[in-house]
Amino acid sequence: MKTKDELPDCPVATTVSLIGSKWKLLILRNLLARPWRFNELRKDLDGISQKVLTDSLRSMEEDGIITRTVYAEVPPRVEYALSELGESMRPIIKSMEEFGIRYKKSIASQ
Amino acid sequence: MKTKDELPDCPVATTVSLIGSKWKLLILRNLLARPWRFNELRKDLDGISQKVLTDSLRSMEEDGIITRTVYAEVPPRVEYALSELGESMRPIIKSMEEFGIRYKKSIASQ
Repeated sequence: MKTKDELPDCPVATTVSLIGSKWKLLILRNLLARPWRFNELRKDLDGISQKVLTDSLRSMEEDGIITRTVYAEVPPRVEYALSELGESMRPIIKSMEEFGIRYKKSIASQ
Repeated sequence: MKTKDELPDCPVATTVSLIGSKWKLLILRNLLARPWRFNELRKDLDGISQKVLTDSLRSMEEDGIITRTVYAEVPPRVEYALSELGESMRPIIKSMEEFGIRYKKSIASQ
């Protein structure tokens, strides 16, 4: 979690400091549906590198947005899921979805 | 403007393709209040380089999110403002603001 002093004064900038990247937004979108495994995310997020996915997941875990659970199987299964904090970001992705739906309709009708 | 074939199927990914970066989100936040000049934006967006600001504004202009108006003064004044499309993104920034306010409160009370 970030401390109070690390956060920008502006609440929009605060949110942007947590999920202001293409990949974090798309990871959040995926995890809002269900927990995902690392390799599943890597296959689904077209064009993401292993390093950027690892870094994005670690950063979101450190910020308390997602949880990382290791299941003692062979090979070990690692699953990423949303925390309560991450779940509370649903309205952001919802508003992006609603905009995207309207935008795609307007483009299609041109 | 992007064409229909350039857009991802997913409406969230469509929106992310338009404003899925830290700086584009913060530029959008600023322009939702009023039109801004280039140098004003550069001073306000702490840490942004001239190149990234230029590229971000050009990309948002090409995507039809912002307008760029040159006023015939000496020296010429260039102003960036939201288009109707950009204005229709207000609920996205609003939901980020609402999340940020709640998040900052929860951090402050810990």
